Order: sequence, then C-alpha cells, then structure tokens
Amino acid sequence: MKAIVHIALKPGVLDPQGQAITGALHSLGFDEVTGAQQGKVIELDLQGVDRASAEERVEAMCSKLLANTVIEQFSVEIID
Amino acid sequence: MKAIVHIALKPGVLDPQGQAITGALHSLGFDEVTGAQQGKVIELDLQGVDRASAEERVEAMCSKLLANTVIEQFSVEIID
Repeated sequence: MKAIVHIALKPGVLDPQGQAITGALHSLGFDEVTGAQQGKVIELDLQGVDRASAEERVEAMCSKLLANTVIEQFSVEIID
Repeated sequence: MKAIVHIALKPGVLDPQGQAITGALHSLGFDEVTGAQQGKVIELDLQGVDRASAEERVEAMCSKLLANTVIEQFSVEIID
C-alpha cells in the first residue's frame, strides 16, 4: 500500500520561495509567469496496515513530523 | 491558466532525504513505513499564453531552472 502526502503553505502565509522562483523565471525571459507556489509531495510505502488505519496513521505522521501545521496544510491519499 | 510541475528523483538515484524520513518515522514508532520518497510540486500562474505553447514553455522552464535533469525527472500538467 502507498500513501501520497501533499504539503503546501496555507493561504496567506508569506512565500519567499515562490517569489524567488517567479523572479528567477522573469530574469530568464519567462514573463508569462505571474506567480509560483512550491509544495512537497511525500510518497510512503506502507506494510501491514489496512486502509482505514493507514489514513489515520499517515495523518498522525504529518502532524508529528512531516508538516509544520502552523504554516502548512496537508492532504493524504491512500493507494492500494 | 495554471501549470502544475511534479519533480522527483529519477529511479536509482541515491535518496538520503527519503532514508532520513523513513528513519525519523521509525524512531517515532511508525514501523509500518518501509520507504519514503520526497518530491516537489511547483504551481505556476500563467498569463497571455495559449495551452499548446504553455506546455512547451513550462518544459523549457523545468529544463533551464526548476529541475536538475541530471538526477530529477519532471512532468507538466496544464490546467485552464
């Protein structure tokens, strides 16, 4: 079983990384880019858990380690 | 128009970050995790380009700046 975790900044949180990407793309001539946001995807391989408890466990992993819930939001997707 | 870029390590490339995530999850008691891979997602806001040229331009952005194509692979998705 696999879990895909998407982590992104919460709306409204200052995003210097996105601004840096936008600025760098402009300096390379890609002026059509008006904004950029970078997020993380973490793919976890899971063994010995059923689907229901997997989702709960992965949410606990996000809250405890993978995401900084003060400034980041996450979503979990379980794939068989 | 939006472009979603997914960037991940190519298969076979050594992934110390994934190993660190796995180790940290084990130390927190999440022993069901047998492996982890972390990738990036970059969301770009685009203006003044049509769909066909957007895809081509975003692929150029990836090759020139966003991805390190020696060790990373990327995929581009255009959303209206």
